[in-house]
Amino acid sequence: MGSPPSDALSGSIGPDGIHRKLIRVYFEDTDFSGAVYHANYLRFCERGRTDCLRVMGVHHHELHKGEGGGLVFVVRRMECDFHKPARIDDLLEVRTVCLEAGGARAVLGQRIVRGETLLFEARVTVALVGADGRPRRFPQGLACAFKALQPRPD
Amino acid sequence: MGSPPSDALSGSIGPDGIHRKLIRVYFEDTDFSGAVYHANYLRFCERGRTDCLRVMGVHHHELHKGEGGGLVFVVRRMECDFHKPARIDDLLEVRTVCLEAGGARAVLGQRIVRGETLLFEARVTVALVGADGRPRRFPQGLACAFKALQPRPD
Amino acid sequence: MGSPPSDALSGSIGPDGIHRKLIRVYFEDTDFSGAVYHANYLRFCERGRTDCLRVMGVHHHELHKGEGGGLVFVVRRMECDFHKPARIDDLLEVRTVCLEAGGARAVLGQRIVRGETLLFEARVTVALVGADGRPRRFPQGLACAFKALQPRPD
Amino acid sequence: MGSPPSDALSGSIGPDGIHRKLIRVYFEDTDFSGAVYHANYLRFCERGRTDCLRVMGVHHHELHKGEGGGLVFVVRRMECDFHKPARIDDLLEVRTVCLEAGGARAVLGQRIVRGETLLFEARVTVALVGADGRPRRFPQGLACAFKALQPRPD
Repeated sequence: MGSPPSDALSGSIGPDGIHRKLIRVYFEDTDFSGAVYHANYLRFCERGRTDCLRVMGVHHHELHKGEGGGLVFVVRRMECDFHKPARIDDLLEVRTVCLEAGGARAVLGQRIVRGETLLFEARVTVALVGADGRPRRFPQGLACAFKALQPRPD
Repeated sequence: MGSPPSDALSGSIGPDGIHRKLIRVYFEDTDFSGAVYHANYLRFCERGRTDCLRVMGVHHHELHKGEGGGLVFVVRRMECDFHKPARIDDLLEVRTVCLEAGGARAVLGQRIVRGETLLFEARVTVALVGADGRPRRFPQGLACAFKALQPRPD
Repeated sequence: MGSPPSDALSGSIGPDGIHRKLIRVYFEDTDFSGAVYHANYLRFCERGRTDCLRVMGVHHHELHKGEGGGLVFVVRRMECDFHKPARIDDLLEVRTVCLEAGGARAVLGQRIVRGETLLFEARVTVALVGADGRPRRFPQGLACAFKALQPRPD
Repeated sequence: MGSPPSDALSGSIGPDGIHRKLIRVYFEDTDFSGAVYHANYLRFCERGRTDCLRVMGVHHHELHKGEGGGLVFVVRRMECDFHKPARIDDLLEVRTVCLEAGGARAVLGQRIVRGETLLFEARVTVALVGADGRPRRFPQGLACAFKALQPRPD
């Protein structure tokens, strides 16, 4: 296939500090109304967050198997606005920025757009927990990643 | 199987005006962290809303095929708090009440509990749209159903 | 809610040796074609297998946390025939029998029906693996459960 | 982002007549066993089939809105072998070829690999149905697409 398209899969962070990633709408994402099932926008956002961290060198399987012991991200709170429906075959862009970065909590702003049309937006509070379910402070690399993800004027 | 358990499937509305419905956690609901995947609580809530309407005589397939023309519910906004994780084999209860009932919009309060432990809660704004995607006023039966679903002192 | 409906949720095994369980079709199960998304029949079957074992006293969380060490079921092979579509609000019955029970492998026969209409059927080979991913022989209780699940003449 | 990565998203057909497409494993795809939930390999295969048709100019939304009247693909039969588990963050390749192309039915062969390791393979029979649920002959463009997708010696 020539050059590997894995970078394209994971998206990239622009000079404006926003991570952008493309997502295609498939059969599995839609429901009988003809539009994307509402909970699936949360799946799209989670792919955006995961790939945003990936391009900054943070990987779920490393957090989980690392010496910290079974670290995984959990979502604490989401405020979601469903503006317009996405449909089969649509090519969507998920945009992710970091709004607040604390020592054990980050608040991300996410938007899903189709061209210039805003379909969905969410404010997402995430934390990291250990195998015992208790919150953990962000490791250094992760804390830096969230700080680097602040939106910047162009 | 003796008496048909379909009522058990759909739950019921108590004298306190709250719809309660049991949901089992299966393989499909969990993720590699060992807990239920966050977006799946929204699926559980949607089952609760659907069954709550069902026991009041409102059915999606009738709205969709009725003379109104392709009516379907859409979620406009959700505020979600993820308190504690649910796990494989858990038996959860979804509780649904109506907090505000307007002519073309309703706000529902939903909680997911395991025994006495609150796992998840959401405030959900729903509306009804036609085949053209435009909002429609609630039909009489549906407006009555939402009004009947107001929480009541015991 | 009077008597607890959890038995209704898990279904039961009839005198014919067939486990039967009811499943409702929700928004999440359908796709834009108006029918249930094909891969979701596999989710329904997995719920049937899980509840079939549950009513015989076998629970995923006990296998997983037991001394055997992180035991989980895996599907090795499925042959699936999609006969007719299920639709929103449908009440389906999942029927599960054991066709072959070996020491480390079982072959189950599963059907999904709506009333008398056969919608889907599958032949499913399952095995048990440990935390290292290697196959394990079935514990005594599980082997007995599969043997007890053989179809019987009425 | 420089050149648009949408081609990378949809994969491509090699000189060997095989469509190849990359898929990332996210939280949503896994279950508490730590591996990808078995039914999700079917979702990955459906994305492969859809994108394979897309790169040949066949689009679900055009079939569905076209003059033929509400055409959608249905899966008639699948034989699935689950060889090895995929895990979080894995980069998988879905390979799709056409094994048999009839006038109203096609049989596709699909494999999911991680590097050189075969994880999953399926033989999938698909057909096209109209809004009435009845089978339709493949339109000319689609029949040609399936014929062009036959595996070729390098």
